[in-house]
Amino acid sequence: MAWLTATYLMRSEPAQIEARAEALAIEQSVECPLEAVREQRILDEVVARVASVEHVDGDLYRVAVKIAVQTTGGETAQLINMIFGNASLWDYVQFVGLELPPQLLARFSGPRHGIAGMRALLDAPCRPLTAAAMKPQGMSVEQLAAMCRTFALAGVDVVKDDHGIADQTYSPFAQRVRACQAAATEAVRTTGRPSFYAPHLIGTPRVLREHARIAREEGVRVVLVAPMVVGLPAFRELVDEFPEFVYLAHPSFGGAARIAPPLLFGRLFRLLGADAPIFVNYGGRFAYPQTECGEIAAGLRAPWGELRAALPVPAGGMRLDRIEELLDFYGPDTMLLIGGNLLLAEGDKLLARARDFVAAVSAQVMT
Amino acid sequence: MAWLTATYLMRSEPAQIEARAEALAIEQSVECPLEAVREQRILDEVVARVASVEHVDGDLYRVAVKIAVQTTGGETAQLINMIFGNASLWDYVQFVGLELPPQLLARFSGPRHGIAGMRALLDAPCRPLTAAAMKPQGMSVEQLAAMCRTFALAGVDVVKDDHGIADQTYSPFAQRVRACQAAATEAVRTTGRPSFYAPHLIGTPRVLREHARIAREEGVRVVLVAPMVVGLPAFRELVDEFPEFVYLAHPSFGGAARIAPPLLFGRLFRLLGADAPIFVNYGGRFAYPQTECGEIAAGLRAPWGELRAALPVPAGGMRLDRIEELLDFYGPDTMLLIGGNLLLAEGDKLLARARDFVAAVSAQVMT
Repeated sequence: MAWLTATYLMRSEPAQIEARAEALAIEQSVECPLEAVREQRILDEVVARVASVEHVDGDLYRVAVKIAVQTTGGETAQLINMIFGNASLWDYVQFVGLELPPQLLARFSGPRHGIAGMRALLDAPCRPLTAAAMKPQGMSVEQLAAMCRTFALAGVDVVKDDHGIADQTYSPFAQRVRACQAAATEAVRTTGRPSFYAPHLIGTPRVLREHARIAREEGVRVVLVAPMVVGLPAFRELVDEFPEFVYLAHPSFGGAARIAPPLLFGRLFRLLGADAPIFVNYGGRFAYPQTECGEIAAGLRAPWGELRAALPVPAGGMRLDRIEELLDFYGPDTMLLIGGNLLLAEGDKLLARARDFVAAVSAQVMT
Repeated sequence: MAWLTATYLMRSEPAQIEARAEALAIEQSVECPLEAVREQRILDEVVARVASVEHVDGDLYRVAVKIAVQTTGGETAQLINMIFGNASLWDYVQFVGLELPPQLLARFSGPRHGIAGMRALLDAPCRPLTAAAMKPQGMSVEQLAAMCRTFALAGVDVVKDDHGIADQTYSPFAQRVRACQAAATEAVRTTGRPSFYAPHLIGTPRVLREHARIAREEGVRVVLVAPMVVGLPAFRELVDEFPEFVYLAHPSFGGAARIAPPLLFGRLFRLLGADAPIFVNYGGRFAYPQTECGEIAAGLRAPWGELRAALPVPAGGMRLDRIEELLDFYGPDTMLLIGGNLLLAEGDKLLARARDFVAAVSAQVMT
């Protein structure tokens, strides 16, 4: 019998916590009164069990539950269903930790490129990496391509679509990808330095696949996907079908989940194949605590079975004047993504500002 | 210019609410400082705008934001991204309302059967409907088929897989669907009364499609899907590809969202094609307030463009002794789903108990 361990923070009166923990174990397995389970095999091998209940402080408890691996069918959607399905409907429960036994972990390939693969692709063995976002949506294909060219000329490693850019009439997907990819390629010929355009893939599963094919035909190597928007199972399938892409994962719709950010962005996204999860940085537009950001980055890089390390991409209201501080905190295995703050300049000044960004990151000597 | 209206509840100090509302409008559209938006057309036609800010009470405000329809590309995933993408990352925001203008609403077909279609299928023009769930997972295919036969013999309208039943070794999908569908068909020949087995479809998009094909080949007419587990875009695509099925929608992983339940289960699931959304009832294992359950049911049945009315399916710790109370509250356009409570009897007693359930619901005269 193999079991995975899922951990939850639960709020409760002291007198109720044991019963709440037991109820969660039943809910996440057989979902019926134990009196209705009439087979010893099911009681022994299928019903989840509370492994530990630990008082954190106040009314907060950390509850570890062992869930039978066979209930997951070894499959992404059913794994989600078993680790945080109905329990998500209790507002006093937050899902905070997941430990998979080796035989279940081995069913997930994780990032296909990870930190090492991205460093090889970018010919950047040691230094921190850079990314910029093309904004605002509403710009024409020509305007986006011009912005892409500027960022690539400045030497930004990855130039991505804003995650709001999809397949709208003002910049249809196929035309945009062709034009931006051509612009990046042309800039790279000029600079002799690698730089990649990353289009945003979004849609129902069929649209995702069709857009991935178009991107591949255009020679795209890096793509942006928001796993919680397209659905975690659809994301995992896309990675399996198009393993040649480097996947930047966007957190959109992700904070909607009552899953701790270090678990969702630091672990689950990596498990399902994200090479470089973007997450909202401390001190920006989204007030994530610094410790939580550190935990996300640590989770992405930590040894985890055979899974490749993934690259942390802090973002969300980043500014040029914070580069030194952020690299001191995150270290060199990091990609800094600066979006709107770069765009406070335009035209030639945008090129200069993007060059300053690249130079500041490259110059940073890690101690 | 067409705009949709998304409504949020936001917690804020009074001095900050205007700025927070403006920040949300920018985040859910151009996602960059307005100084970086240099075109009047984008300012006029793409940037979202705060339509109203209304004080609810204490630190709670209701904020309505107009979002340009063209930013959604008329597409499910991008609609989610634009109505609750990055804003989901602010823990002081809850998404509570959505109004779509007619031309956007017309791109969604909603339920293909709805209340009227289900009543026709079940030959039950007026009375409330019944559903039971086969549990616990871990039972063999033979045991599940026997339970399915029992419920169908008792005259339960829809006999569904427990949502924890997927494609596990103890009851593989294809074998289970064949056996349970045959058991239901056989029982219907005996009783002369319609009764449908509803298998649970879960997996990545390819698996969903493959399992839907198997179910169709076996003659299945009703299926169970958890839209938040498989991903809302994948759910919508499944409904589009297999419109012949009646879709029961399961709330698993749904409470994880910081989306108000009346919006998620009462509106969004219906918009994307759920015929009969299951939601957790008041007074059961999940402590949803009764008013919220009433709002979910009202949202499913309310006139909404050309969308068919969907059938409310309250569930989650329901008991036989509450049937009268629940039907008084929900009225006849309701399907009562009783799971574990039925299973407190087994063998011949289970058949008798299921018959009591069916009789109690059928006997209920609505005034």
